[in-house]
Amino acid sequence: MKNGISRKFYLELTPPTEKDNRSDQRRLLDAIEANMNRSVYGISENSEAPEKSSRQESRDRFHRARINIPLHILRALHPFCEKAGWKMTASLAWDGSCWQVAALEAGDTSDAHYGLAVDLGSTTVVMQLVDCESGKVAAQESAYNRQIAFGEDILTRIFYSKDQPEHLEEIRRATVETIAALMEKLEERTGIPLRTSSGALKTNAAKGDRDGNRMGRCISMVVAGNTTMTHFLLGMDAFCVFSTPYAVQADQPGFLKGTELGIPIPGYVFCYPGKANYLGGDIISGMVATDIYRKDTISLFFDVGTNGELVVGNREFLLCGAGAAGPALEGGVVRTGMRAANGAVQHVRLAETAGNAEETMDGDGPEPVRITVKEGVTEKQYRVVTDVIGGGRAEGICGSGIIDLISELFLHGILDLRGKLMPEKSDAVVWCDTVPDEKDGDGEYAFQYAPGLFFYQSDIREFIRTKAAAYTMMEYLLSETGMSLDDVGDFYMAGAFGSHVDVTSAVNIGMYPDVDPARIHAAGNTSLEGARKLLLDRRIVKELPEILDLMTYVQFGAVEDFLEKMTAASALPHTDLERYPSVKQRLARYVSEL
Amino acid sequence: MKNGISRKFYLELTPPTEKDNRSDQRRLLDAIEANMNRSVYGISENSEAPEKSSRQESRDRFHRARINIPLHILRALHPFCEKAGWKMTASLAWDGSCWQVAALEAGDTSDAHYGLAVDLGSTTVVMQLVDCESGKVAAQESAYNRQIAFGEDILTRIFYSKDQPEHLEEIRRATVETIAALMEKLEERTGIPLRTSSGALKTNAAKGDRDGNRMGRCISMVVAGNTTMTHFLLGMDAFCVFSTPYAVQADQPGFLKGTELGIPIPGYVFCYPGKANYLGGDIISGMVATDIYRKDTISLFFDVGTNGELVVGNREFLLCGAGAAGPALEGGVVRTGMRAANGAVQHVRLAETAGNAEETMDGDGPEPVRITVKEGVTEKQYRVVTDVIGGGRAEGICGSGIIDLISELFLHGILDLRGKLMPEKSDAVVWCDTVPDEKDGDGEYAFQYAPGLFFYQSDIREFIRTKAAAYTMMEYLLSETGMSLDDVGDFYMAGAFGSHVDVTSAVNIGMYPDVDPARIHAAGNTSLEGARKLLLDRRIVKELPEILDLMTYVQFGAVEDFLEKMTAASALPHTDLERYPSVKQRLARYVSEL
Repeated sequence: MKNGISRKFYLELTPPTEKDNRSDQRRLLDAIEANMNRSVYGISENSEAPEKSSRQESRDRFHRARINIPLHILRALHPFCEKAGWKMTASLAWDGSCWQVAALEAGDTSDAHYGLAVDLGSTTVVMQLVDCESGKVAAQESAYNRQIAFGEDILTRIFYSKDQPEHLEEIRRATVETIAALMEKLEERTGIPLRTSSGALKTNAAKGDRDGNRMGRCISMVVAGNTTMTHFLLGMDAFCVFSTPYAVQADQPGFLKGTELGIPIPGYVFCYPGKANYLGGDIISGMVATDIYRKDTISLFFDVGTNGELVVGNREFLLCGAGAAGPALEGGVVRTGMRAANGAVQHVRLAETAGNAEETMDGDGPEPVRITVKEGVTEKQYRVVTDVIGGGRAEGICGSGIIDLISELFLHGILDLRGKLMPEKSDAVVWCDTVPDEKDGDGEYAFQYAPGLFFYQSDIREFIRTKAAAYTMMEYLLSETGMSLDDVGDFYMAGAFGSHVDVTSAVNIGMYPDVDPARIHAAGNTSLEGARKLLLDRRIVKELPEILDLMTYVQFGAVEDFLEKMTAASALPHTDLERYPSVKQRLARYVSEL
Repeated sequence: MKNGISRKFYLELTPPTEKDNRSDQRRLLDAIEANMNRSVYGISENSEAPEKSSRQESRDRFHRARINIPLHILRALHPFCEKAGWKMTASLAWDGSCWQVAALEAGDTSDAHYGLAVDLGSTTVVMQLVDCESGKVAAQESAYNRQIAFGEDILTRIFYSKDQPEHLEEIRRATVETIAALMEKLEERTGIPLRTSSGALKTNAAKGDRDGNRMGRCISMVVAGNTTMTHFLLGMDAFCVFSTPYAVQADQPGFLKGTELGIPIPGYVFCYPGKANYLGGDIISGMVATDIYRKDTISLFFDVGTNGELVVGNREFLLCGAGAAGPALEGGVVRTGMRAANGAVQHVRLAETAGNAEETMDGDGPEPVRITVKEGVTEKQYRVVTDVIGGGRAEGICGSGIIDLISELFLHGILDLRGKLMPEKSDAVVWCDTVPDEKDGDGEYAFQYAPGLFFYQSDIREFIRTKAAAYTMMEYLLSETGMSLDDVGDFYMAGAFGSHVDVTSAVNIGMYPDVDPARIHAAGNTSLEGARKLLLDRRIVKELPEILDLMTYVQFGAVEDFLEKMTAASALPHTDLERYPSVKQRLARYVSEL
């Protein structure tokens, strides 16, 4: 991919003669330039530029991107070139201004040219191995962020390292080790050597061989992470991210040498810039992934993770904000909640059964919970059908399962529009008076969604707060632009949550707006996708300042009527049911008294 | 000087507030950009850019040179900025593509902004401390190159380090130590702290104070040296410079980090590029010093040092070559020769005395040698008047003294046109039969130019070989261009030799061509001067590839009739006396038989 942030060329140099005694440096640069031109302009040229270039060519050279050979490679040219028989592969890394010769290897390794895209999440780090010649993803791995050793949540880590350079260094190293470990996992998966040992960086070319040195096939890396993650990766105190006036230390680190960060690649690590303390590189990367900053139509981007980040706009403006929208959705607050891993209930529906008749079991799973629901004057029998990740016994429930569950309970009247469990509506709503951690010991109602697994009234309360915050953020940003939901062409729901959630369920509970489901897109891991795109197209780097300038960040905490609006959104789906015509229809279908 | 390779700005940043919570990084960059614009465009602006820049401004930012804050400075911004009260001085260093923030200091040190220009000679290293705000030279120092410990002559050093990385490292370190020692000398002379300790580079900003750290007032450096010197400075084996096919390792090192080279500056070291093995950065620097590549008229540039380098041309072409022209001129071959230091005879003339009458002594010096010269049929009495550097007793003779001496001996007929001493012409020509180092013990004629100091026939022979080589190089390059001496507008004689030599004497002996003396310019240390110019004007960097492309290098060894031409030039002043009409006149005046 000729526009990527790394290039790799196999070069057959002509050995020096008395007639052509250009320096090794010039010989190498000429050959790289000729290859660069051929690939950029499609010019058919020899492997090397003509011996003597005209003045015009010399001027051209300066209008094109400069190619630089750093000192450690310059020093190694002799006797490397001779020992390699003047046949070598040059790895080039873009540093933001020019091409740096990052590595030289004897022979032809140009077909093995990879780069890494990284979504640096505070909980999970995802890494894609990208074939930089074809642009295809060769493999993907993810792992828990080793920072977790210093705190499950981000704030604990921030306090751990605040004004403690040694602790900060521990966290920085944990971050880098997570990245290196993911590279190792990808190596094991693909059999491709990816890591370059720092020894190899200095001596590989000098020794002219690879014995004892490790030269990987990866050149450069793009990292998208929130502001705190970027601070930790760079070894910077992140207390500024969470403390007023929210002026962070660095938000545009740009291209940094892999060796400088301790990441085993010979090229550069590009870190996506951030817009504000709570609107980091992962979201800017999402803008690039979804292209909404290039479109005429208005888009709404919503990344639901531990935090919720929202952007509304098009090529003319991007209004954005962030708020605590996530924990409940990731199962962090819900008592039987869990991450979307094996054993997690990811989808729920109530399936009507014909009275007491025996039913065929779904697969080998355990028998589902059977419940009775009063609908109007009649009683109906339902099975609580659960879709468990991995197919085994349910061990808890994840975000998309919760949305389905609340949606089903609401549609069947087991939850009222204030989000209260109605024990009179179903035998499945039971009083739990021995709830651990409940101080007053009063207990609360709960709904058994799988054998032995309950969803509590307090879980619902927490969850509704989250969905209300999410909805209010959307509503507020749109109202700020003087637009309504109808003006939005596309809704991009990013993140794992956005990918797995059932759109109709999310609309039913008023988390998503009630629009044509075709306009709501599960955008996936846009942080990772934006990183991959930039890895293959360095022109995006030049667009980033424009994206940042398009963006206006709203601190929701500073919005006066935010809480009031949020209260209105705390009903299911909303106090103003007219906003949810499709839900109103569905409710009418299920609940006869409406 | 706004076009220099370093800048220094005093910045008063506004502390972050909730309304203006730009990152520390952005705050610093905005302030630097505003200062840069003000100084470049003369725009009256506040110390900082407006809080929110328009898209146009953002695009502009990318069309202007990029400003980068490297990782170690980014990491130090917190708590440096706060501790400095947001008032700081930023040092910026040009890296060839963009501005790098090289250092941050609390308070205002912007008026102390220096750079270093270095002529890296194989024998002597000269360093100029340049005030980068005024462009003026603040001080200059020189020292012997510490490489001399590994060999008086350059070839010994090359063989010492060939294929011996440890020896090469010794030489590299000696080079760097010479440079650091010169910085120390300049510090002592001026009282200005110039060296920045590498600790300071990493921690000064971080600690927010200068205690225990040393932050110098120099940012960047420009070095001009021949190809071998540049190789040694960079730690590269220089055997390639002297061995066929003369393809050197690196000839365009460009900007290198001071820390990477071990030179105690926070910015970059620019090394002038070379054209060929024997035509290095010192000569390209000379092109910049004399501007001959910008002129319409033809110029001839001749740098007489240990080696002699020659360039003929103008803005359309530059023909160049190099040859062994120097040792004799630096006093290295002549038996009583010495460098142009205290005690060296730098000028000689024969002053006629009135018979045996007592003469007034010139100053306090010892009485000069008195000689009798037969001119035609008469005998005349002369004093050998010598101008001794430092004014004391003569201890030897340097290049310019030799030229005068040979010229005087020739004009007075004591030397014939083949360069033979004529004992029958003067009582001052004596036979020395106990000459040390003379194998056959036959002895040779010599001329006593100062009490106890003789100039030998073999010295003259050696010297004439040198001047013949020099003249033939000029002649050959001119003939290659189809031009004659009359087509040359200006002659630039560079180097210490060119500065001190008497032009008429040099013409008399046929070392310089017989042209109007007003056209012959003593250009001084053009290597140093070109370094100083580039330090103050980075636009020159962009012109260097054009200069290199204009140049065509002629290997004199490969020229067929070179030796034949040199033989013709081995007479005094030349076998073809018609080329030297003014000398012919002068001879007629002195020597009646002509």
